[in-house]
Amino acid sequence: MKDAVSTGDLDLPGWDDVIAAHARIAPYIHRTPVLTSRFMNELTGAELFFKSENFQKAGAFKVRGATNAVFGLTDEVAEKGVATHSSGNHALSLSYAAGQRGIPCHVVMPSTAPEAKKAAVRGYGGTITECEPSTTSREAVFAEVHARTGADFVHPYNDPRVIAGQATCSRELMEQVEGLDAVIAPIGGGGMISGCCLTLSNIAPNVEIYAAEPEQADDAYRSFKAGHIIADDAPVTIADGLKVPLKERTWHFVSNYVTDILTASEEEIIDAMKLTWQRMKIVMEPSCAVPLATIIKNPDIFRGKRVGVIVTGGNVDLDKLPWMS
Amino acid sequence: MKDAVSTGDLDLPGWDDVIAAHARIAPYIHRTPVLTSRFMNELTGAELFFKSENFQKAGAFKVRGATNAVFGLTDEVAEKGVATHSSGNHALSLSYAAGQRGIPCHVVMPSTAPEAKKAAVRGYGGTITECEPSTTSREAVFAEVHARTGADFVHPYNDPRVIAGQATCSRELMEQVEGLDAVIAPIGGGGMISGCCLTLSNIAPNVEIYAAEPEQADDAYRSFKAGHIIADDAPVTIADGLKVPLKERTWHFVSNYVTDILTASEEEIIDAMKLTWQRMKIVMEPSCAVPLATIIKNPDIFRGKRVGVIVTGGNVDLDKLPWMS
Repeated sequence: MKDAVSTGDLDLPGWDDVIAAHARIAPYIHRTPVLTSRFMNELTGAELFFKSENFQKAGAFKVRGATNAVFGLTDEVAEKGVATHSSGNHALSLSYAAGQRGIPCHVVMPSTAPEAKKAAVRGYGGTITECEPSTTSREAVFAEVHARTGADFVHPYNDPRVIAGQATCSRELMEQVEGLDAVIAPIGGGGMISGCCLTLSNIAPNVEIYAAEPEQADDAYRSFKAGHIIADDAPVTIADGLKVPLKERTWHFVSNYVTDILTASEEEIIDAMKLTWQRMKIVMEPSCAVPLATIIKNPDIFRGKRVGVIVTGGNVDLDKLPWMS
Repeated sequence: MKDAVSTGDLDLPGWDDVIAAHARIAPYIHRTPVLTSRFMNELTGAELFFKSENFQKAGAFKVRGATNAVFGLTDEVAEKGVATHSSGNHALSLSYAAGQRGIPCHVVMPSTAPEAKKAAVRGYGGTITECEPSTTSREAVFAEVHARTGADFVHPYNDPRVIAGQATCSRELMEQVEGLDAVIAPIGGGGMISGCCLTLSNIAPNVEIYAAEPEQADDAYRSFKAGHIIADDAPVTIADGLKVPLKERTWHFVSNYVTDILTASEEEIIDAMKLTWQRMKIVMEPSCAVPLATIIKNPDIFRGKRVGVIVTGGNVDLDKLPWMS
């Protein structure tokens, strides 16, 4: 149990916002299945429950937060559309949500983003402006697009509407699986983990919350240990969804409610990804393999526990699988 | 509706055998989910219901027939184990079933079978003897293994116990989806299709039954048109589960109950496979993509219909995906 903390001037979402978000987005999202695997349980010594957001609309959990933001807009604001920058899944999730409401969507994407994601954004009707694969370039290009269009900015994670939307995922998981001891999710900017913190701190405060991060993009890990946000500009990892840094709203949840942050090497992530494809027959992104990689690496933490594992998305470029040489 | 036909001296399974098989195998198999995809429905103009046997135990529908055979043996016969030849999934399904009962399993596999399948057979405790990738070589090597071990021969498809087991798949599908107009499944030796024929002719005789086959291994198609079995010795197709010829028991069902056999080119199969991975986020074998490829190719047959599609297995060698150059 954590002590209450001052949240300063931040507009942070509360449990009522999660309830409202869930009702708002329900017509546009899937209640995704929870998969189990005897093989994975025997491998890890834990009971794993995979909340499979790779089967989600637009192929990723990010559609929850994006849809909550888009359908919460007044008609007047919505008319100018929405805009964002994103390493991929938020871009196509926001495009999907905007398409559902029939409003424009402007997205700034790194030129290195998987072709499959760019094609999907365009397929949902989004308009792409490319930037360099660094936070600095992304923010500069976005400022121009935002000013030009007047669209409502929906940040991929540092937005209370988005965090409340992502929190609906762990709310479903808690309804679907009884007696969880822990939940683990990948951490990039911290939107999903913040959603887990928001839900669990309200309805199941004794459930442990682990965040899993690539060693090569371990800014959240270092932030957590240091007690303040550390941001890297352009880390290199195959887990392309996890390159972005924490921001003040996600830092609030991470610093107050996360039990620990665990890291895995690129090789460990690729092995866990391939193993999941082979044994569970699901297509999931490298980012989703980071939690399993850290569970395999840290058996003493998870042995004997019932663990919810958030599989965050399935939008993979099948022509560039990480085990292809 | 078909007229009744003489079955000569063949020992063919009946509906009672399907009921008995389902009860016998239920503790060892999954009742696999039926997946839907708005994208696939819009693409084809049909309503598709994917019976996802890629999530089945041992990764394929073949575990149904194999388990029915293994658990139907008397203790005395079971003691010497079971033996088979198989292009892959039957081998590992029989190994899985034999392992569940704790008896030996001897399998003859082509040397060209995917490494993932060979590793899985060994993982389940099966013993592999390799042969050349032709029906002739397979049968010669098998005769030696069979004579040496005295194990009970469980043919991958030309066995009434196996056909009754495979029939439980379409029985579940009919329970899971109401109002199907048609069912489509890949055809190799014809075990799955025979199971569909057995089930549907008994409980839903107005449902159309389509078989889907690679153009490059279209012996069932040519047999169907000619009215007698035509067998090729070593066809070449990426759909490695579909290279084997019809035998008399499966020919009985195919010739009497199948509505039509449709074929697809290698390129059409690969495209359908990749599309399914991309949009449905499931790992499935090339063989499973043949039905979707033929649906896409023949929109006039399927438009407006509710179609059950059997996704037969998910045991893919991830290092040799067919779109890798």
